[in-house]
Amino acid sequence: MSTQDSLQRLAQTIESRKTGSHEKSYVARLLHNGPDSFLKKIGEEATETVMAAKDVQRDPANPLLRGKLVGEVADLWFHSMIALAYFDLSPADVIAELERREGTSGLEEKALRKTQI
Amino acid sequence: MSTQDSLQRLAQTIESRKTGSHEKSYVARLLHNGPDSFLKKIGEEATETVMAAKDVQRDPANPLLRGKLVGEVADLWFHSMIALAYFDLSPADVIAELERREGTSGLEEKALRKTQI
Amino acid sequence: MSTQDSLQRLAQTIESRKTGSHEKSYVARLLHNGPDSFLKKIGEEATETVMAAKDVQRDPANPLLRGKLVGEVADLWFHSMIALAYFDLSPADVIAELERREGTSGLEEKALRKTQI
Amino acid sequence: MSTQDSLQRLAQTIESRKTGSHEKSYVARLLHNGPDSFLKKIGEEATETVMAAKDVQRDPANPLLRGKLVGEVADLWFHSMIALAYFDLSPADVIAELERREGTSGLEEKALRKTQI
Repeated sequence: MSTQDSLQRLAQTIESRKTGSHEKSYVARLLHNGPDSFLKKIGEEATETVMAAKDVQRDPANPLLRGKLVGEVADLWFHSMIALAYFDLSPADVIAELERREGTSGLEEKALRKTQI
Repeated sequence: MSTQDSLQRLAQTIESRKTGSHEKSYVARLLHNGPDSFLKKIGEEATETVMAAKDVQRDPANPLLRGKLVGEVADLWFHSMIALAYFDLSPADVIAELERREGTSGLEEKALRKTQI
Repeated sequence: MSTQDSLQRLAQTIESRKTGSHEKSYVARLLHNGPDSFLKKIGEEATETVMAAKDVQRDPANPLLRGKLVGEVADLWFHSMIALAYFDLSPADVIAELERREGTSGLEEKALRKTQI
Repeated sequence: MSTQDSLQRLAQTIESRKTGSHEKSYVARLLHNGPDSFLKKIGEEATETVMAAKDVQRDPANPLLRGKLVGEVADLWFHSMIALAYFDLSPADVIAELERREGTSGLEEKALRKTQI
């Protein structure tokens, strides 16, 4: 199964939680509690990604630390997708934006220009 | 083109910058400068994602604000992918982790359990 | 009582928790659990500060929102002080650094130069 | 000179930049550009504080790394103070909140209760 299918399917699962019981589902609870609840998690998971990466930097071949880094990025993307779903956006919008940048002028030139502003 | 192809291709582009000139390429420069340079960006883009989401929350139908939110998530995922590439990991590892959680015990139960620890 | 006395006294309270029971004291527990536990909180409280400030921006005269912003900055500074204490540093070191910048070349020129790098 | 004097004086300097030229002053420029400009910095400096602390964790006696950590916390507090000033708040409000928590019920019990919610 392709990554697209995976992200799409995950996005659909999240989408379906908008109407679900927030007693049984973590995602439904975040969506019910509103933006601050999942935006706070984005800040938290970004920090945990940074800490996990610093640990891998110190000990690059350690499989536990490498797995932890992957898990933190997964948490970060997952909570980003909850934010997207809450506002009726999807990972497809994010991918399209990444493609657009790459397509129009080269991804990196775009990024370069941005940092020069 | 599928999302998988897009993320994979983007990951390959980033990968190719490991040996590129860091004078012309933003990605090559970050990879050359080392973890702190792109990890700092992850924290920054997470904060910008949160701010953009708060703006959409205030004015949900505004297309400019919605586009800004998508752009910030794109920046966040893009810089996450630079961190993954630096440590010889890829978006496929992240997707696999998301699938694993969903597959074994239900994504949400997993997340629920995690937050109860 | 002066602000200095307040921060110093708070720093001493935190310091005293290094040897305390981590079952009864939140600070002792963070110090016992090690850097990731309180560094994660710094990222979290920074995000909550940003969200609270966005709420005040939307409704500047609302006393509840203003109080929440003050509370989040207090949380952010408090957890910074736990990090300082863990590494045998103190708020006095931070204040001295702020004074040094102001004293040597003007606080803002210093900051300006820094951002131009 | 006491810490209170230092933070108060720094707050007054920031306050005075509200009416200053944003061409010459970094603080005046952030205040002129509005909340997103300095809130973004809070997220950025929090991440840099976390990275600097991870470096000290790895090599605790290294004076350069220790100095960097102090500098990042100084940056974090400094940009927090710009946010406070923008919304007509001050470090004294933050200190008062920290004292209030300590005074009413014990700082840690308060924090403990908070995390148990």
